Amino acid sequence: MARINENFQKLQAGYLFPEIGRRVAAFTEKNPNADVIRLGIGDVTLPLAPAIVEAMRDAAVAFGTPDGFHGYGPENGYDFLVDAILEHDFAARGVTLEKSEVFVSDGSKQDSGNIQEIFGQDCTIAVTDPVYPVYVDTNVMAGRTGEADDAGRYAGLTYLPATAENGFMPGPPSERVDLAYLCSPNNPTGAVASRENLEAWVAWAKANDAVLIFDAAYDAFIQDDALPRSIYEIDGAKECAIEMRSFSIATSLAPSIS
Amino acid sequence: MARINENFQKLQAGYLFPEIGRRVAAFTEKNPNADVIRLGIGDVTLPLAPAIVEAMRDAAVAFGTPDGFHGYGPENGYDFLVDAILEHDFAARGVTLEKSEVFVSDGSKQDSGNIQEIFGQDCTIAVTDPVYPVYVDTNVMAGRTGEADDAGRYAGLTYLPATAENGFMPGPPSERVDLAYLCSPNNPTGAVASRENLEAWVAWAKANDAVLIFDAAYDAFIQDDALPRSIYEIDGAKECAIEMRSFSIATSLAPSIS
Repeated sequence: MARINENFQKLQAGYLFPEIGRRVAAFTEKNPNADVIRLGIGDVTLPLAPAIVEAMRDAAVAFGTPDGFHGYGPENGYDFLVDAILEHDFAARGVTLEKSEVFVSDGSKQDSGNIQEIFGQDCTIAVTDPVYPVYVDTNVMAGRTGEADDAGRYAGLTYLPATAENGFMPGPPSERVDLAYLCSPNNPTGAVASRENLEAWVAWAKANDAVLIFDAAYDAFIQDDALPRSIYEIDGAKECAIEMRSFSIATSLAPSIS
Repeated sequence: MARINENFQKLQAGYLFPEIGRRVAAFTEKNPNADVIRLGIGDVTLPLAPAIVEAMRDAAVAFGTPDGFHGYGPENGYDFLVDAILEHDFAARGVTLEKSEVFVSDGSKQDSGNIQEIFGQDCTIAVTDPVYPVYVDTNVMAGRTGEADDAGRYAGLTYLPATAENGFMPGPPSERVDLAYLCSPNNPTGAVASRENLEAWVAWAKANDAVLIFDAAYDAFIQDDALPRSIYEIDGAKECAIEMRSFSIATSLAPSIS
């Protein structure tokens, strides 16, 4: 008899975004003329920049021609793209990486959910609090937690509160933890980790043989050049950190070529 | 200390496609003028049909305008798309499904890999042999098998040989198995399941409380109208089968609107 993955049943029915959706739907039904400002799921609001539109349009047209058409690309990404990533995302920040260290996937969202699968079932996890739910829920579904308490926090996870005292960017925990998820600029708080904060995390990870999963999806929004945009700007991070980056988040900041 | 998912180490280094790649690379290095016909990974060879190109081009251009731009769509897919799927993929074959029974994902490949995550860790698995490696490898990585033998077959999986005697489309096993992966038209053999074959599978699944995972990605290649293109054409399949379909495989068969 086929049986379900019972870890899915630990997921909170009160998960934030469906609950916001239910309340907004109920409110707008009662108040059909209200102009609701939605602060739930962060969605994009402006058209794509011309550089993106033109590149996608031209690529679509090229795929209709024998010369412009491509089949499967290289597993780790096209050379031209990997080279551009190495130059603009890393070399420009003083970070030298090898081509073989870059993997172009089908999206940062999928990566942030799937990355936990390469680690052992018994690895312990730390997250900042509040936290992008994908980091937590994928580990719940994989069976690395117990049940949630009344506040929605899962047994077995280490939650590190983001507070005014720590600049909304907590440092490493005092206990041993195997994996820590960091997101800077942070989803949902918007706080950005300082160099000192990331140095403390890297030192902790190396001392504990832990792995940092660093989500830099929002790095395009950093305006202060003194703030790190990649964890690999920190000495030693190459030995303990996996960084995830995104193209989709940055599109609204892309320059126009038209 | 972070530890890896040791199930990944069960994966066969001699996995077919990298091995073919290595041999082709070695041969072409020694024979640089040879015109090699590649029969490894099945890749597309012709440009996209005009209908696809024009729709993608127009969508890209629209996303550059305030009126044509969209943010996140509905979780299960846009209504216009779900309606088109219900009409063309199912109603046209006499199958009635509800909107809520269709989920538009980011791709059939990901689905065929990820679907096993919703099932319990101890579910037993049957596959036809030969088999699309994704079905097997994702269950290996999830820990539902033992080690591979010298022939590359994993302990704990039930392999059902495709032979000339069974028309290269085996029927259900005699033993109890919890999940069975079926692919018709089959990757890699090209064989298509008859109505009688699928009726036997559905009857077996219902009798054993098993689930059929039916991969119809290649259904656009079926030319004989008597052959089922959806497992839901079989009575009772709605109670025991999950069907996966694909847009990408069918694009080379799409009609032109230009």
